[in-house]
Parts: sequence; structure tokens; C-alpha cells
Amino acid sequence: MPPVLADRLALYLVADPEQTERDLVEDVAAAIDGGVTCVQLRTKRLVDGEAWALAVRLRDVCRQRDALFLVNDRLDLALASQADGAHLGVTDLPLRVARSLVSPGFLLGYSPETDGEARAAMEAGADYLGVGPVYATASKPDAGAAIGTDGLTRRIAPVEIPAVGIGGITADNAGAVIRAGAAGVAVIGAILRSRDPGIAAACLAASVHAAKGARHV
Amino acid sequence: MPPVLADRLALYLVADPEQTERDLVEDVAAAIDGGVTCVQLRTKRLVDGEAWALAVRLRDVCRQRDALFLVNDRLDLALASQADGAHLGVTDLPLRVARSLVSPGFLLGYSPETDGEARAAMEAGADYLGVGPVYATASKPDAGAAIGTDGLTRRIAPVEIPAVGIGGITADNAGAVIRAGAAGVAVIGAILRSRDPGIAAACLAASVHAAKGARHV
Repeated sequence: MPPVLADRLALYLVADPEQTERDLVEDVAAAIDGGVTCVQLRTKRLVDGEAWALAVRLRDVCRQRDALFLVNDRLDLALASQADGAHLGVTDLPLRVARSLVSPGFLLGYSPETDGEARAAMEAGADYLGVGPVYATASKPDAGAAIGTDGLTRRIAPVEIPAVGIGGITADNAGAVIRAGAAGVAVIGAILRSRDPGIAAACLAASVHAAKGARHV
Repeated sequence: MPPVLADRLALYLVADPEQTERDLVEDVAAAIDGGVTCVQLRTKRLVDGEAWALAVRLRDVCRQRDALFLVNDRLDLALASQADGAHLGVTDLPLRVARSLVSPGFLLGYSPETDGEARAAMEAGADYLGVGPVYATASKPDAGAAIGTDGLTRRIAPVEIPAVGIGGITADNAGAVIRAGAAGVAVIGAILRSRDPGIAAACLAASVHAAKGARHV
């Protein structure tokens, strides 16, 4: 049986080269070995040619280790790097348009900014949602106010696709995010700004899996 | 007989919403009515959703008037707006990768920055080249030093695909650019910063066609 999407989203690393002082590709490899199941490339400063080259390297690392690989914002970079999917937001290409341009099976994630947008995104063809910021975050200065685990539960209640919580998530609070209904947790700094990305990923994975296991009892 | 690409590139407008104080779509419509044959959307400041919506409006105006419509830099916006093609440069997705993602007939332009890149671009699948800056330009602050008409002739000598000259081109010097070997001229300010884009396009078109006619005698 192929793994269900909700399981593949359990520990989702947003890989931003500006958030690590090490080599991003090495960080990602160590993080997957530690328990990361899905990697999203997010880069705002690289020119497209550089971003594409980085995407291809990350895709290879993810494929070798059986992790999903997604690209943030940019459908062309996702297609050009043979990623498993792309992640879009309210300022990006409309979801319906993106869906019309990709093959069946290509994953599209979406970050709704309101409860209404969550349902609309599902109807427009999103495969999963990124919901947050659950907690205050230092990684994304333009993120809105934290919605908390109650806000997360409310936002995903009307949708039947999996959601990952994002924003200020650590090994300490990851379990609460899962118990609030998320299929997984997305992190940036908790792995990329840790001393050891492999160990940080293992701690997060342990929290997520403990909470998922408890939920299924 | 379908029009050859060289003819469709004769008067090429780079449509940048930051370069006009009027409505860009109205400027473009007037410019096509005046003689523009090809329109490229270039925008650096709009978010993707806005750029896509503008691209769709420009595509409609171009289709109604039988002008080519292209999108600068972004293959995803070009595909999502059903443009006729995209225009890439040295910092964008590699040409070969872009070529592998599009249907036959989708046009790919490229701006080589050296004489060697011109030939490499043709071999990598470019349909036409944008070559310049021929003259000094106020529209693109990061353009390099002007290469002049001699530089244009030298850069396109080894290639067998059409080229448009760009950079500081006006009705006064457009003929010289054609006589130097270009299939067409690309302008921004000469139309968008003129008082009347339709008249400005008509003047440029007259210069281009006079020079093309003389070349074929």
C-alpha cells in the first residue's frame, strides 16, 4: 500500500538557504535521516537559475531518501526540477490555474489566510494545507498574528485534506499541534538554526509520532 | 503562408507597468493598433497573482489584434496565461530545461550577454534573441554598456535565428538597427513614455519597415 499523504507530511522542513549557516543540502540530508518526511525549498533571494540548480540538488537528496520534495511559490521551478509538487499562497498563481498546468499526482499545497480560504483551496484542487502561524515565529517576518492550536483546529475543521501546522513549532509543542488535528508539523528554524539538524529532526519526529500514536488509540 | 517569426518580431514592445503613467493594457492596445507586432510583459514588482491577471488581460488584447504575446523571465506565468512564449536571460531557468517543459511551437527568446552565448542559446533551443543594449537606455538601470550597431552585427553574425535589438531605440535610430541585421526592434520608453503610444508605434513601425524594405531591394 503506498504511504498516504498525511503520513508523508508528518515532519515537513521548509528549506531556506538564508536560515542556515551551513550547507543547506547537507542540512536537509541530515534532517531526512533524522526523520523529516517532506522538504519544501523556499528561497526569496536567489536568481532563478541558482534556485533551479539548488532545487535539483535537493530533489536528488529527497529521492534517494524517499522524502517528498516541493518548491514554494514557483510552479516553473517545481516542474523544472521534477519536484513532487509546489506550495502556493494567496499572492501566487491561482490554484485552479496551477492545477490545470500540472500532471495528475503533482501535489499542490496552499496556505490559506482565513478559515474561508481553507475550504476554497480544497475545492480549487489543493492536496494539503499549510496553516499558521500556530505560534509566534522568527523565521517569517511577514507572518500574521499567531492563531494558536484552537485557531488551527477551527481552520481545518471544514476541510477533508491533510494540513500541516507551521510557525514557531518545536519538539516541545509539536505534539499539541498534532493533537489539534494537524497531519504534520512544518518547521524552519527548529531544524536549520539548531546545532545538529539530524538530532533536531529526530526530536521533532518523536514528538509528532507520539502524538499521532496517542490520537489513534 | 503563416507569417514568419522575423516579421512578427518587427516591432516588439516590452510592456512594463512601471514605465507608463497610463493604463498599461490601453497603452498596449493603442501600440498594437499603431504597428507593434509583439508584446512582452515584464514586471518586477507585482506579486505573482497580480502579474498573472495582467498577463491574461494583455494576452487577450494581443490575440484580438494578432500580435504575439510573451512573458519575461517566468515560464509559469507564460504557461498560466497561455502566452505564445517566454523570454529568458542568463539568470533565469536554463533554456534547455525550459524547452523540455513546453509544447512544440511555444516560443523561447533569450538575451545573450556575450557573443558566445548567442550561439549557445540557439543550440539550446532559443527561437530568437534579444540583443543589446544597442544604445544607452534609461529603462533598464542594470543593462550593461551599449554595444552599438557594430556590436549587434557581430553578436548575431554566428546565429541563424532572428534577433531583435533593444536599448535606447527610437524612430530616429530604428532603421540603423535593422540595417545592422536585426529582424526587429524592441522598445519600452519610446512607446510607454511617449505622449501617444499609438503615434509613437506608428513612427517606429514606419522606420522599421522602410529599413526592412530597403534591405530586401
